[in-house]
Amino acid sequence: MTSTEPVSLPAALSSFSALWSPRILTTVNDYDVRVAKVEGEHVWHVHDRTDEFFLVLDGELHIALRESESGGERTVVLPKGSAFTVPRGIEHKPYAPVRTEILVIEPSGTLSVGDRHDDVPGHVDVTTGHVLSS
Amino acid sequence: MTSTEPVSLPAALSSFSALWSPRILTTVNDYDVRVAKVEGEHVWHVHDRTDEFFLVLDGELHIALRESESGGERTVVLPKGSAFTVPRGIEHKPYAPVRTEILVIEPSGTLSVGDRHDDVPGHVDVTTGHVLSS
Repeated sequence: MTSTEPVSLPAALSSFSALWSPRILTTVNDYDVRVAKVEGEHVWHVHDRTDEFFLVLDGELHIALRESESGGERTVVLPKGSAFTVPRGIEHKPYAPVRTEILVIEPSGTLSVGDRHDDVPGHVDVTTGHVLSS
Repeated sequence: MTSTEPVSLPAALSSFSALWSPRILTTVNDYDVRVAKVEGEHVWHVHDRTDEFFLVLDGELHIALRESESGGERTVVLPKGSAFTVPRGIEHKPYAPVRTEILVIEPSGTLSVGDRHDDVPGHVDVTTGHVLSS
């Protein structure tokens, strides 16, 4: 999966248009570096066994979190150039108020809707990441 | 190590000035997401047991590679917005012709000069990454 040549993020992002449908940019050991275009709401879901890293390349990402300690919900807002790690076991729902581009790092094979999730709306791709076509 | 709030990359990068001295932005399971400012030459080194991911946030990074198959050297050039994974076991030497900002992903504890390296010049920090002071 790992390319022997550098990959341009702008070129990678211009190679597809589907929303909430991550592409695998490269791999690092048994981790994927994925990019995705997003807008609107994802779905409440949880990864039981892995953290999930988000970096906002453009736009703005909101991540709603259900953290057990507090019992309530809070939302972290990531403007362009911000990063956040959702800890394993924390229910979360990404949301983008505008067209947004993100980079995500998680173990290869991690499903976009986690191990448990609410009903998946039709606009959300259930995937472990697609190969980036050159 | 993982913050419960988003981290701004520009703010993180403005919080230090040392070159070739990575800061740990956040962690993802047992991996670090590090940022560094670089300029000039690093040192030939190799990570025997891990790949190493580079993303150029600003500037331009060159990575010289000694790939066993070819027996020779080649250099990959990463302009701003480009990414590359150096495979484990490949000797490499980063070089930046201008002041450059990079994001690196590798397992926590990975040493900046790898498991084997040439003599380390004084301007290269031998570190597993510094805590980002807020």
